[in-house]
Amino acid sequence: MSASDLLSLALSRVDPALQEALERCRESLATDGPPLAHLVPETLVEAMRYAVLSPGKRLRPALVLGAAKAVGGEPDDALPAACAVEMVHAYSLVHDDLPALDDDDERRGQPSCHVKFGEATALLAGDALLTEAFALLGDPRPFRKGRPVPAGRRIQGVAELARAIGAAGMIGGQVDDLAVGASPEDRRTLEAIHRRKTGRLIQASVALGAIFGGGSATQVRALRTFGTDLGLAFQLVDDVLDGDGAVALDGETAVREEAREVTERAMGALQPFGRRAQALRKVARDMAERVA
Amino acid sequence: MSASDLLSLALSRVDPALQEALERCRESLATDGPPLAHLVPETLVEAMRYAVLSPGKRLRPALVLGAAKAVGGEPDDALPAACAVEMVHAYSLVHDDLPALDDDDERRGQPSCHVKFGEATALLAGDALLTEAFALLGDPRPFRKGRPVPAGRRIQGVAELARAIGAAGMIGGQVDDLAVGASPEDRRTLEAIHRRKTGRLIQASVALGAIFGGGSATQVRALRTFGTDLGLAFQLVDDVLDGDGAVALDGETAVREEAREVTERAMGALQPFGRRAQALRKVARDMAERVA
Repeated sequence: MSASDLLSLALSRVDPALQEALERCRESLATDGPPLAHLVPETLVEAMRYAVLSPGKRLRPALVLGAAKAVGGEPDDALPAACAVEMVHAYSLVHDDLPALDDDDERRGQPSCHVKFGEATALLAGDALLTEAFALLGDPRPFRKGRPVPAGRRIQGVAELARAIGAAGMIGGQVDDLAVGASPEDRRTLEAIHRRKTGRLIQASVALGAIFGGGSATQVRALRTFGTDLGLAFQLVDDVLDGDGAVALDGETAVREEAREVTERAMGALQPFGRRAQALRKVARDMAERVA
Repeated sequence: MSASDLLSLALSRVDPALQEALERCRESLATDGPPLAHLVPETLVEAMRYAVLSPGKRLRPALVLGAAKAVGGEPDDALPAACAVEMVHAYSLVHDDLPALDDDDERRGQPSCHVKFGEATALLAGDALLTEAFALLGDPRPFRKGRPVPAGRRIQGVAELARAIGAAGMIGGQVDDLAVGASPEDRRTLEAIHRRKTGRLIQASVALGAIFGGGSATQVRALRTFGTDLGLAFQLVDDVLDGDGAVALDGETAVREEAREVTERAMGALQPFGRRAQALRKVARDMAERVA
């Protein structure tokens, strides 16, 4: 079985694992205090499920699992981290789509979470997805079939994720984006904004995979470097697909070419990992070449 | 120096520690990429500061520090956890006040966060406070003057907090509250809702103090039990102060009396801690007797 087949196999376990995590939320809600049985707070879990299990490429989980493999770990051991980054991704989309921010009625051709469940539930479902992401990292053994994750890896994962998506990371990028609004900015500024808004979670996904796969500090650092460039490449392609500001400035072909160059530059950081990084390389190339 | 004086001393360090944590967010924002220097994303940190450093009793931090002392730890060692629960409390208020939820224009006599900073910034400031709370728990040494916190305590703290404030905890309680709306419910249902919406964070505050203070599993369990009853007592007094539904059903004097009884029942769980729990007892009694 090839490296990418192994990865596909692990990736096929992400959605069932997300299901399992949400099912546990639902069960806790249902069993924690009988007087609430008639209140149907399950809407919350339904909204979470709608947001996180919507059709998608699960790119971030693929990076987590590929990075775990690159450091010689079992991809399955990084499943809690893979689910955590997908939950964070989903939370950021749900909050971004809210009327107070981008006010988007659709997401991937489906009604956005607040259109389907109402603003109050969508807001709280976003909060809950963010919280459950940390719950997954905190849990010594979140999945019935998974092996226990050592405490040191889990706490390092919490620190890595929180830094990446906090005020100076992803959320800071969202604020920058609000501040820029529709006013045209130079390419470098747009890149800096996107590096935070999108790039930091991509970078954290790779780092979390390395951490949960049991990588050394040197390996985690190397993969973080890889993740930085990969995040930039990801954003460049996103800009092409969205017909975004930066692309208007430089033209689609030039941006596509730059994305390829940045991806190849990123590959340099994978050199010490040899063949073990093969699956991760494939995920990266697929990202740079993607057309949707 | 008496137990409660020692606690006051530690408590006096919570606000400066929160300041330090937010200052670090601001610095990271300012230094992470020069192209952004003109974008003023500092509004985010200003909104976070406004929400978390508003005048308040810092009850949850007091519980954290008191519980750390009860297990024989140094209250100062639990400062990261004390700040984390206050950040979570602040985030929950900011999101609760948003137009999509309670639509409250005022909070403790001041304009609520979204009135002052706009809905988009308030929403993101709430997200950032929640995220930074986990960042504080994940950081081995978040404060310059603090001692490093062992990884085992930190990850246990993450798991405890995430469970308490997730879909089956605090957020679930908020959803219940929405579902009940203005319709009258029996006393037991209201209690069950408030146990989640308010009680779980109170309980987690006590448990986090025990964990960060280095308590044994037995001690953490005993303090969690204490925290459950304390959360209920807290909510009963809150109902009196808010003139809430449950109080209308039973009358103010009866509810005050019940709060006192529940608090005394809670004290039973502190028995094994002897004099070390003196400061925690005082915080609990002050909570039950508070008039504002």
